[in-house]
Amino acid sequence: MVRRSTSNVGRRKLLFTIGVLVAVLALVAASCNGDDDDGGGDASASAGDINTRREAAGLQPLTDAQLEAAALTYLPSGEIDPYIMFASGGHAGQMFVIGMPSMRLLKTIGVFTPEPWQGWGFGNEGTDAVLAQGDVGDQEIRWADTHHPALSETAGEYDGQFVFINDKANARVAVIDLRDFETKQIVKNPIAINDHGGTFVTPDTEWIIEGGQYATPHGWEFAPIESYDDEYKGMVTFWKFDRASGRIDENQSFALELPPYWQDLCDAGKLVSEGWIFCNSFNTERATGAGEDGSGENFEAGASARDNDYMHIIDIDKAVAAAQGGKTFDVNGFPVVGLQTLIDDGIMYFIPEPKSPHGVDVTPGGEYMVVSGKLDPHVTVYSIEKAEQAIANQDWVPDEYSGVPVLNFDSVMEAQVELGLGPLHTQFDDKGYGYTSLFLDSTVARWSLGPPYQDDGWKLEGAIPVNYNIGHLAAAEGDTVSPDGKYVVALNKWSIDRFFHPGPLLPQNFQLIDISAEPDTAPDTAGMQLLYDMPIGMGEPHYAQIIKADKLAPFDVYPEIGFDPATMAVDPNAPTAGTERVERNGNEVEIWQTAVRSHYTPDRITVKAGDHVIWHLTNIDTSIDATHGYALPSYNVTLSLEPGETGTFEFDATDSGVFPFYCTEFCSALHLEMAGYFLVEP
Amino acid sequence: MVRRSTSNVGRRKLLFTIGVLVAVLALVAASCNGDDDDGGGDASASAGDINTRREAAGLQPLTDAQLEAAALTYLPSGEIDPYIMFASGGHAGQMFVIGMPSMRLLKTIGVFTPEPWQGWGFGNEGTDAVLAQGDVGDQEIRWADTHHPALSETAGEYDGQFVFINDKANARVAVIDLRDFETKQIVKNPIAINDHGGTFVTPDTEWIIEGGQYATPHGWEFAPIESYDDEYKGMVTFWKFDRASGRIDENQSFALELPPYWQDLCDAGKLVSEGWIFCNSFNTERATGAGEDGSGENFEAGASARDNDYMHIIDIDKAVAAAQGGKTFDVNGFPVVGLQTLIDDGIMYFIPEPKSPHGVDVTPGGEYMVVSGKLDPHVTVYSIEKAEQAIANQDWVPDEYSGVPVLNFDSVMEAQVELGLGPLHTQFDDKGYGYTSLFLDSTVARWSLGPPYQDDGWKLEGAIPVNYNIGHLAAAEGDTVSPDGKYVVALNKWSIDRFFHPGPLLPQNFQLIDISAEPDTAPDTAGMQLLYDMPIGMGEPHYAQIIKADKLAPFDVYPEIGFDPATMAVDPNAPTAGTERVERNGNEVEIWQTAVRSHYTPDRITVKAGDHVIWHLTNIDTSIDATHGYALPSYNVTLSLEPGETGTFEFDATDSGVFPFYCTEFCSALHLEMAGYFLVEP
Repeated sequence: MVRRSTSNVGRRKLLFTIGVLVAVLALVAASCNGDDDDGGGDASASAGDINTRREAAGLQPLTDAQLEAAALTYLPSGEIDPYIMFASGGHAGQMFVIGMPSMRLLKTIGVFTPEPWQGWGFGNEGTDAVLAQGDVGDQEIRWADTHHPALSETAGEYDGQFVFINDKANARVAVIDLRDFETKQIVKNPIAINDHGGTFVTPDTEWIIEGGQYATPHGWEFAPIESYDDEYKGMVTFWKFDRASGRIDENQSFALELPPYWQDLCDAGKLVSEGWIFCNSFNTERATGAGEDGSGENFEAGASARDNDYMHIIDIDKAVAAAQGGKTFDVNGFPVVGLQTLIDDGIMYFIPEPKSPHGVDVTPGGEYMVVSGKLDPHVTVYSIEKAEQAIANQDWVPDEYSGVPVLNFDSVMEAQVELGLGPLHTQFDDKGYGYTSLFLDSTVARWSLGPPYQDDGWKLEGAIPVNYNIGHLAAAEGDTVSPDGKYVVALNKWSIDRFFHPGPLLPQNFQLIDISAEPDTAPDTAGMQLLYDMPIGMGEPHYAQIIKADKLAPFDVYPEIGFDPATMAVDPNAPTAGTERVERNGNEVEIWQTAVRSHYTPDRITVKAGDHVIWHLTNIDTSIDATHGYALPSYNVTLSLEPGETGTFEFDATDSGVFPFYCTEFCSALHLEMAGYFLVEP
Repeated sequence: MVRRSTSNVGRRKLLFTIGVLVAVLALVAASCNGDDDDGGGDASASAGDINTRREAAGLQPLTDAQLEAAALTYLPSGEIDPYIMFASGGHAGQMFVIGMPSMRLLKTIGVFTPEPWQGWGFGNEGTDAVLAQGDVGDQEIRWADTHHPALSETAGEYDGQFVFINDKANARVAVIDLRDFETKQIVKNPIAINDHGGTFVTPDTEWIIEGGQYATPHGWEFAPIESYDDEYKGMVTFWKFDRASGRIDENQSFALELPPYWQDLCDAGKLVSEGWIFCNSFNTERATGAGEDGSGENFEAGASARDNDYMHIIDIDKAVAAAQGGKTFDVNGFPVVGLQTLIDDGIMYFIPEPKSPHGVDVTPGGEYMVVSGKLDPHVTVYSIEKAEQAIANQDWVPDEYSGVPVLNFDSVMEAQVELGLGPLHTQFDDKGYGYTSLFLDSTVARWSLGPPYQDDGWKLEGAIPVNYNIGHLAAAEGDTVSPDGKYVVALNKWSIDRFFHPGPLLPQNFQLIDISAEPDTAPDTAGMQLLYDMPIGMGEPHYAQIIKADKLAPFDVYPEIGFDPATMAVDPNAPTAGTERVERNGNEVEIWQTAVRSHYTPDRITVKAGDHVIWHLTNIDTSIDATHGYALPSYNVTLSLEPGETGTFEFDATDSGVFPFYCTEFCSALHLEMAGYFLVEP
């Protein structure tokens, strides 16, 4: 016990006092040998011993705060993380599932990019079909730039059923089912070639919102850049989500034609603002770049010329009414509500916002929309009540270029709070504070919200440094109507000197921050405490959402033998124990095969070169974690079959020879013997 | 200080005594407020407060040992991991770079599988060319089952220059340069369609060893299974590594024809056994499976019938002499030394080993080869000195099937140590202990080596439980002539109840174990302490090697502007500041473009539909972490250009339209404005 006390070298004033007590207590301490329940010998957790052992391991001593941070993020073997973070993979094209507060990667979900470990896109027909939904015309697109995951919501709370994510590079949206954490659907936006402002869901997930980014002619037809003002368009798309089928219903979906301002991020209203969506924009200057000869103004200057850009605020019900009322035109067969209809029907209004904003975030109660102009040191807070009043009062002027009503800034603005340099995004807690990422300052600012959150709000409380150049930040249950207020994660873009350099491509850095204390408990960081640095060396996450783990109810194993994840139902044609067989019909060979620890049945199959092979394989093991893989050399085929799962792959046996297939998941002591021969006669 | 003492609820006998001291010290403690250097307020690291705060965070209280483990694996922001682990990605087809002891993933290196975050295989010519080296005939293979990473060695020590890895599924070997952690070369084995016993290097990396697995006719030609004994072959391949060019020299490489026993793992001799390589085998029964009609015996039974299989011990110098002396035949143009030559020239001998072994591991001094028959509870230890003596004495009988001399087991065996059920692999420390993974027991056994390591060795010291079903294990600097003895990592195949279940496909579980203490310090775990569980949710690593971080000297940025990682030299044709241009020659358009925070030059390019486009792009930023990405919609192209890097991609502009290209790495406050238009006129 006392040897622990001697450890705290930071407290020199106490050392003498302690020294005396050590002498006394050492005798007592000796008597406690063997009382440890840790099997690690006497007093093994003494902080004195800890830093001695850290030194022996070549590590620096821990301060009190660091030891506490270590303890608050350490999960002993078998303890389950209470929170799960869903982080976009950026240009990895995937999604990352991370346990919190341990900040451990639990799974990389294959979304837009083939991933062989989980058999995603390497022959399995179900997975190949989902990936093919993302093709652009006749181009196979097999990567993505995933940006903004959105968990499905019920009454504004994450319900743990689905998670959605967009691809900025090719304007696509994916649907992931959280029963098995697999991607079930990809939709390609029919009118836009890139997006950014998505995915965000309405409070009951009736709609998945996808906003645009760089304006192009709709349907990405060609139009010369000189006709930018006339032929280039922005957009926001309303994807109708059918919860029963777990799929987007493209036939009930539609888009809005927006001016060629570069729409950026969107958020859905909630509670008092339910029924609205809000989308930022930049480049309302309609800059078109320096051009091939460099004679013009490049985008970074051209898109930053005006003092203000426009928040687009859109009335969902009126937009749906226009779409369902046929006030649309078709682009690639997809209904689009035209800009003039948006004006005529009072579907969309603009609100001026400080130039080049990068986030619009709605407060938990829905009262306010918080915007950060990244070149302005303030967050600007708008009131939905005031916006609705301004609309009622026709307190607007038309936008010179588009004619869209621009609400009176002074009538709609509730507050501005100066935070620092490069504010981007804002999240919220359960105590009436906002948290805003500051890219240039490399900090997270904590500030107080005004009524009804705090009587005396709209004030900066302070900030905590982050390393380095934070983009988004994510709070636990942060986009719901009831954030948890325990943690914020800083999604830092540069790590520079935080980790060992694995070559010139450095990881990103997620930093876990405890926000459970009030600002006055640690004034220099406004009560925030840095707990953990997590390097992200497999993608560039842009945004993340964090859900309570107990809201998720994934399958441990598939519910029945022969389950097909593509349909989430039993495949009646799935091989089962006793139905294994090979059928030949001319040059077509169809195989029904099962896998069980530790063999395939059948384990030897002979075909003729040129035969078309249809191969069905079921994992008939039913115990948790009893996954079997399947690998076939020289045919670029690999499957991962979780317990009960069935899969089918087809190919032409073009190459004659002898090809051993085998199980790729170490499944038993005789795993290496789980193999067979596929023989192709010349 | 004292509040920490009150925390130790595990020590009830002391509570009263402590209580008294609390009263005394509390007064003193009060006086130390403000002395904290942690900014977290008074005594924030008190273990009492820690468990109180853990409870508030929904976490369970930590025992002493768990708090210590937390502290011994926690790296505060900016502290660099002293060890780096290179883990295979299994059927992810990649390699993982993990910092130790924090067990944080620093990077996923794209090896055999395309990976867009690092621009690996999505248009960049340099990366596409490396991946294409791995094609099998005319089949594009874009995944792998990576098994055994091998760090390059000098005099038996890891030198930090290169790391190699094999692909079991298609018998390929990759070379990764540790200056930029990028894959530089893939070689396809010309005679085998699958492998397993690699990669392992000789002590000075002259040779990279790749052993076979499932026997097939060489060149994977067709031969009926009935001719297995005559036409199916095993193999081991010697790849010549040219350190100067950093490439395998295929023209100086060769293979050995082995009997159709399924060779498994190999290891190279070192010090007293330098000059030998050792390869296990199983299925010396030459089982061929149950067959399509199921009438035969399946592999798991058929390959386990005999009591013994054979370790292959191979004299490198004699093998090289035979290969260079032309005692070879060609398979797909690759020289193969025939089995009879191996016998006639005394190149290869067999040593009986308990059936179905899965690992052969050479002790640091090279004196012993340690083998575990996975169906036998012992490790069996062989002496190279005794093996050499048995060879000198011709103390052998010919193998009935192959004629290879089988050395007398009793003459060569040094010791057998009973460890438990399912022993697989063995690693070593600096104190004379071996560590063996036990798959069925789910433990790591610690046992003492005999002379010269310990006078009274060859004894089981004890074991520590792991969760669950361990395959390989890896020790710090474990395969060198001087292991560090600080850590062992258990590569567990099943995690079952260790983590939240992200659907039916569970992560693997790496467990970090401290082995620095002697067995008697904690008899119930033979002195071993479990420190950390790391879920592996992005692949199934089979093996890993762990190197001291200070042996690695990666680039922070590329040394010069215009650097091409494919050649590791400046590309004289690389675009640089001031040389940006677009040249048109008929229907070919060549672009020289630069990227710098926050724009591309040029930022707008117009071509005609059908033009062939050759696009060169250089990142002219030179500060660390200033990576720029490049994404082009609808063309499946994405690049990652680290500071100074240049890349080229080519495509036919088949689709007319307007395609915004943009930077995918958040590089500055105006990152979103770092974009341009690629226009394709109809």
